[in-house]
Amino acid sequence: MNRSSSSSDPFRFLTAAGPVAALTSARAWIDAVLEVEAALAGAQADTGEIPLGAAGGIARACDVARFDVDAIVEEAGLGGNLVIPLLPRLREIVGPDDAGYVHRGATSQDVMDAATALVGRRCADAVTTSLGRARRTVAGLASAYGTAPMIARTLGQHAVPTTFATVTDRWSDGLAAAVEALDRVARPAVGLGGPSGDGTSFGTGHGAVVAQFAARLDLPVAPIARHGQRTWIADIAGAWGVAAAASGKLATDVVVLAQSDVGEVEELADGAGGSSSMPHKRNPIAAISARAAAMQAPGLVATVMGAAGAGELERAAGAWHAEWPALRQLWQATGSAVHWVGASLGRLHVDTDRMALNLARAEAALT
Amino acid sequence: MNRSSSSSDPFRFLTAAGPVAALTSARAWIDAVLEVEAALAGAQADTGEIPLGAAGGIARACDVARFDVDAIVEEAGLGGNLVIPLLPRLREIVGPDDAGYVHRGATSQDVMDAATALVGRRCADAVTTSLGRARRTVAGLASAYGTAPMIARTLGQHAVPTTFATVTDRWSDGLAAAVEALDRVARPAVGLGGPSGDGTSFGTGHGAVVAQFAARLDLPVAPIARHGQRTWIADIAGAWGVAAAASGKLATDVVVLAQSDVGEVEELADGAGGSSSMPHKRNPIAAISARAAAMQAPGLVATVMGAAGAGELERAAGAWHAEWPALRQLWQATGSAVHWVGASLGRLHVDTDRMALNLARAEAALT
Amino acid sequence: MNRSSSSSDPFRFLTAAGPVAALTSARAWIDAVLEVEAALAGAQADTGEIPLGAAGGIARACDVARFDVDAIVEEAGLGGNLVIPLLPRLREIVGPDDAGYVHRGATSQDVMDAATALVGRRCADAVTTSLGRARRTVAGLASAYGTAPMIARTLGQHAVPTTFATVTDRWSDGLAAAVEALDRVARPAVGLGGPSGDGTSFGTGHGAVVAQFAARLDLPVAPIARHGQRTWIADIAGAWGVAAAASGKLATDVVVLAQSDVGEVEELADGAGGSSSMPHKRNPIAAISARAAAMQAPGLVATVMGAAGAGELERAAGAWHAEWPALRQLWQATGSAVHWVGASLGRLHVDTDRMALNLARAEAALT
Amino acid sequence: MNRSSSSSDPFRFLTAAGPVAALTSARAWIDAVLEVEAALAGAQADTGEIPLGAAGGIARACDVARFDVDAIVEEAGLGGNLVIPLLPRLREIVGPDDAGYVHRGATSQDVMDAATALVGRRCADAVTTSLGRARRTVAGLASAYGTAPMIARTLGQHAVPTTFATVTDRWSDGLAAAVEALDRVARPAVGLGGPSGDGTSFGTGHGAVVAQFAARLDLPVAPIARHGQRTWIADIAGAWGVAAAASGKLATDVVVLAQSDVGEVEELADGAGGSSSMPHKRNPIAAISARAAAMQAPGLVATVMGAAGAGELERAAGAWHAEWPALRQLWQATGSAVHWVGASLGRLHVDTDRMALNLARAEAALT
Repeated sequence: MNRSSSSSDPFRFLTAAGPVAALTSARAWIDAVLEVEAALAGAQADTGEIPLGAAGGIARACDVARFDVDAIVEEAGLGGNLVIPLLPRLREIVGPDDAGYVHRGATSQDVMDAATALVGRRCADAVTTSLGRARRTVAGLASAYGTAPMIARTLGQHAVPTTFATVTDRWSDGLAAAVEALDRVARPAVGLGGPSGDGTSFGTGHGAVVAQFAARLDLPVAPIARHGQRTWIADIAGAWGVAAAASGKLATDVVVLAQSDVGEVEELADGAGGSSSMPHKRNPIAAISARAAAMQAPGLVATVMGAAGAGELERAAGAWHAEWPALRQLWQATGSAVHWVGASLGRLHVDTDRMALNLARAEAALT
Repeated sequence: MNRSSSSSDPFRFLTAAGPVAALTSARAWIDAVLEVEAALAGAQADTGEIPLGAAGGIARACDVARFDVDAIVEEAGLGGNLVIPLLPRLREIVGPDDAGYVHRGATSQDVMDAATALVGRRCADAVTTSLGRARRTVAGLASAYGTAPMIARTLGQHAVPTTFATVTDRWSDGLAAAVEALDRVARPAVGLGGPSGDGTSFGTGHGAVVAQFAARLDLPVAPIARHGQRTWIADIAGAWGVAAAASGKLATDVVVLAQSDVGEVEELADGAGGSSSMPHKRNPIAAISARAAAMQAPGLVATVMGAAGAGELERAAGAWHAEWPALRQLWQATGSAVHWVGASLGRLHVDTDRMALNLARAEAALT
Repeated sequence: MNRSSSSSDPFRFLTAAGPVAALTSARAWIDAVLEVEAALAGAQADTGEIPLGAAGGIARACDVARFDVDAIVEEAGLGGNLVIPLLPRLREIVGPDDAGYVHRGATSQDVMDAATALVGRRCADAVTTSLGRARRTVAGLASAYGTAPMIARTLGQHAVPTTFATVTDRWSDGLAAAVEALDRVARPAVGLGGPSGDGTSFGTGHGAVVAQFAARLDLPVAPIARHGQRTWIADIAGAWGVAAAASGKLATDVVVLAQSDVGEVEELADGAGGSSSMPHKRNPIAAISARAAAMQAPGLVATVMGAAGAGELERAAGAWHAEWPALRQLWQATGSAVHWVGASLGRLHVDTDRMALNLARAEAALT
Repeated sequence: MNRSSSSSDPFRFLTAAGPVAALTSARAWIDAVLEVEAALAGAQADTGEIPLGAAGGIARACDVARFDVDAIVEEAGLGGNLVIPLLPRLREIVGPDDAGYVHRGATSQDVMDAATALVGRRCADAVTTSLGRARRTVAGLASAYGTAPMIARTLGQHAVPTTFATVTDRWSDGLAAAVEALDRVARPAVGLGGPSGDGTSFGTGHGAVVAQFAARLDLPVAPIARHGQRTWIADIAGAWGVAAAASGKLATDVVVLAQSDVGEVEELADGAGGSSSMPHKRNPIAAISARAAAMQAPGLVATVMGAAGAGELERAAGAWHAEWPALRQLWQATGSAVHWVGASLGRLHVDTDRMALNLARAEAALT
């Protein structure tokens, strides 16, 4: 039994469903680290700092299939990050002639920060796609059932009549807000600071190298290296928290409308929603899973923001490291919430007869 | 001893310093509620829904000095929000002829949401001003001491030489990120939904009334009423969390550089930083207070985001109400962190001699 | 307009209802500080370290009515805690002969820690009383309606028949767990560490003084001064979080059972639960308020626990100060949740007819 | 590439080090579920509810090696928990004659709750062992260096002289508090509620079955089934939060004392603490990792407590499911923090010469 299987997550069906799990695996993260090392060498070749051939060799070596991912993760405990154990392996693959051009001028945090930006972008892109799909499903529901009369419920009480469009409008609005939030943070700026963070280790060509580096990663240029200023990480966390809130809200609506006592929506799916003791039950399990996933987010946002505001000086001893697992879990949990929201919407049966019945009961009670 | 003094906050010097406390007092909040009621009547007069004279009378009545703020807060427990006990008082001041035009078509949440937007904007504006002032102080420090050589410290260890500009650059970058974050959320869109949230209670003129209402409050128009979709609240919380992180980071740098063992900065202020047992000590108390205030923020962001994602249907029974105290404390704590950061920067003595000494010691240790 | 009214809390009806607000006011906290100073002098007189007459004079001077509470809070910003501005005032009241015996050997944190313990104990005692009252109300409901058949609901779905005793049993169990949690932390141990925390400033009689000090405060003796080890604070936060969870759960049950679509319970109270736009509505506003209050707790627990684990060395520069406001808000919010739970239970009408109707509907749907 | 490796955690070296990862793997959790099913059948045989032979057959079938763990986790998404996909597999292994005795009277939550209790106990036991080992290392440091004079530091400033015993005393006190906290929650009570939670599905022998069930699991008997009352889960979270705080505090002390500018302790370890750009650096990487791990805890405690207080009625639609991943990560992160604290202590070099030098400098500055 290898290490990774012995620690496999029994609740990944709940908080790591959808594409984000694969995009944030050890392999994916090390792949991003390698992409950053290749971009750095490429940028330095672009600006004449290192030979073109060396950059080409480094780029070819930066192939995750050539690395023992589990061994790197295992060894990362010695230095505290993934870059330190990766570098000697990369230099060995590159070979003695060009090994000296690997990671030139850089420090671990240059690479981890840019890799975090890349991984985060991929997660944002994937979840944005899921959100778009969910929004189209909502549009379909709105078009099919939007005019159906129903009773509005405020503070749990029957209020006044409305239509199902009130529900789909706010779902759509929430999903749009989630897309907007993720868009905003999908392309964080990257810099190169070197050991002190001031970029001097990259020499006089620093500005040019950073510009090429960012261009190769298709990311904006950071005004300064961001080792010691983590507002960009806090901002990423906040945006994902918004996306999680949008998902949690939609799922909560489904769960509440699906209550047996309300019965205005139902999740219909072969094999899903069963019970170990009550075969008659039809639980809205996708919405339930979405809620459970979304509930993970606020605490994770707090962890990331707390770390972002607690780091000291040029590179923080712990507050930096604390960002990674919390960000990764935030991305996974939010992505999972969005995944389950999409599943719930796809399974959703809207019962306009029950809406009419409940509305009639409500109106009878009001008179 | 009245109710408010009996519950006065013994730690307001720490987590409610600066202008935000007054901007989020009971009086300020009720003032905002009144401004919203006046804007609603004004908008309805603009669009011909109610007589101009009625709107004028309502506007004149919406003067917080005419209301017993403490009594309204006290009674708010009966209905769960500030609007319910305010309305009969407002109608009485307006008088029997026009009382029927007060709050017409609206529900409590229309008013509370817009009032929250107003209070939040004032807080954001005030804190942005403080951030700008702090940034200018940082610029002054950068200009005076930016070229001073010092040792960079990463993971608590002496790394390589840099200059004090590395410190001031990231402080400035953080304060700019805080300004950008608050700017983004300073003008939330407002809508009018009425009891069900779908706006039908405002009749066919709904769109026009909302447009005038928003214009009178100098806020954008929300596509739909936002009673049941709280991503905008989550977004506000995230932005303030970023501002708090920027403040906490800066304050942490000051505390760490002010350690007796480092001594590269010091807070100089008559009367401040003393100790009850050690008269010789000079504690960087403004930075310490800023840290303490900033540390309140992540948990409050989590509370707001959790509530924003947990609300059900057209108006949430608890999750909505949970937003207000947490947002208010978040605004206060972040504002206080920024206030204390400003105070710390204003008191900051930069000891370039000690920087040089520490750098020499560091270089001696490296060789 | 004095400072405290200008910052009075517009949401205190929600998150600071019940006895805790008064027990955690500026006045109450400074009263506790004075009680600690008196106990310290008394303990030192008990052990012969200072004259009996001096201790008597100090005890007489430690009367909160003789202090300008607002001025102390205002000045606390200069030194970062309430003790520093209080001491010169106390010494002046004591008079020149005995002023030297005030706060002898102690440091601010000795006093603030013991005062925190005292305030916390009072809050725990008051909330425990409220919990006991709530539990008796639950027992009354159980005895009146416990045998009423109703449908159990799991994951929002009708499950199988049960009785209302299932509901009251778990409410009672939760309230008992809350009492047990608060009991556990109601009497934290106190020590005296002096400036370094090692107690040497108290001389060879340190152990004896600490024993008398603790006895006079009716609290256990801490093995060491706890300035630099805040697990006891984290433990207090955890216990209050449990009490908040018990309250939130009970309130959630009420809100869910009170939904118009369920209607098995209702809050009946003259004047409460109204709406600004829908006079027919009967909102379960006490339960809603309890939920909103309880939702504040987890984020505050996280803040306290985060601070408790982040402090450095003998006294933390910020992490210590961050404890106070978060603890105070946690006590207030939890106390408020318990208060509103009690109010909700007191207003609760149990509709066994509706239970029977819902059960019949559920059974019809199952067959 | 199988599912679990494709999602393997790149930061497990940081937040899942030590024994907890294996104790909370999918395999371990399903093993616990099987142990609970066996105990249930055993208890029902003990009380004569089912044949002894059936219970024996079920016990033999409850061998995790006979189950496809990954497939169960994969399918768990359909029903929302691990028990639902496990049961048909278990019944198939048991065979047609006795399959009807499997899970008799029980509901998924009976099994998941007891399995959570078992997994939590194992984690608590393992971490308690690590804490004990760490405490012995601290005792060794105290005995070797406790009398070494050093300067106390409060609020980052040199205060007055003390000795290293002040440091080791509070470390030991914190580790003891962590042990006490985990002990308190290591053996949660278990019940059996069945579909409605009231136990009626187990018939008249319910009390006897519960007693045997608990005895077989070596856990106390819960007064009522705890499906709908999660204070016990909140209490577990609080206790682990205390253990994390103790670890974070100790690690923070190490990081602060190991600063190059202080230099009073150092982590010495072959191969550890290196830098990708600065070979001369010796980072206290174990303490840094411990801090990063401990920083995950408060947010996770908030998530668990929030879920515990938000669940509705007999079984919560999402709030229940949200507990599992957050609890698991809390156990892992806290266990990892304790693991890294142990590693840091084991590597700790205490530099009493540097303590003496710093003390002399401090005393020179004071005079």
